Amino acid sequence: MGKTIVEHTGGMAFVGKSASGHDVHMDAGEASGGADSAARPVEVLLSSLGGCTGMDVVSVLRKMKTEPASLEIEIRDERAEHYPKAITKLHLIYRVTGDVPKDNLIKAVDLSLAKYCPIANSLNGVAEISYDVEIRSG
Amino acid sequence: MGKTIVEHTGGMAFVGKSASGHDVHMDAGEASGGADSAARPVEVLLSSLGGCTGMDVVSVLRKMKTEPASLEIEIRDERAEHYPKAITKLHLIYRVTGDVPKDNLIKAVDLSLAKYCPIANSLNGVAEISYDVEIRSG
Repeated sequence: MGKTIVEHTGGMAFVGKSASGHDVHMDAGEASGGADSAARPVEVLLSSLGGCTGMDVVSVLRKMKTEPASLEIEIRDERAEHYPKAITKLHLIYRVTGDVPKDNLIKAVDLSLAKYCPIANSLNGVAEISYDVEIRSG
Repeated sequence: MGKTIVEHTGGMAFVGKSASGHDVHMDAGEASGGADSAARPVEVLLSSLGGCTGMDVVSVLRKMKTEPASLEIEIRDERAEHYPKAITKLHLIYRVTGDVPKDNLIKAVDLSLAKYCPIANSLNGVAEISYDVEIRSG
């Protein structure tokens, strides 16, 4: 059981005060009455998915002694056309540089998406999650 | 279709680069090999839910001409005991101060959770979402 408090700070801006003591800022765009001072909530959600699975992938690749020189995850979402515009598809592209065998990366991603990452394993009950990997020698 | 890129910045730290041009920082705690420099991914997810539904509630209450003096949303999550430790329950407590009729607040929350908020409407496919409201005259 965690506990996060999200406070309205004026206009359409909110800040999440996390149980670990850190802030997460959000705002709407100007077209939605906000001031564009921070990311949109859905962007924050997509970031949380990337951070979650990214931490898993780094951990697993470290254990395999094949840590990448760099890692980024691009996340594309598709949403329903009509309200509530729920997320229907998520596609993740894991891009690494360094001497990382493709099999290791795929194993790390599969472990994260199927077992370790609570965010992926919550969202995959509602959205179809797919992924690709791209490796460049560093 | 949105696009967010989450980059590994060293250790267990990641930063989400959102489509709107803002950063979302995340890190693991020291017990998990991180440096506790930012919120955990699940905390970031919970914040995104609070920001999403909070923006809806502010918008609806403004339209009703009963905007609160302050609004915060406490979010408690329950997770499965075993991996992948998916989110099973979410309880939201909407706390407002000001001259806000309780019926208006409940209507605003119901509209958000059932219709407007894409994050709640994605997560409610996997987690049971409940809420309470607390109003103090400002």
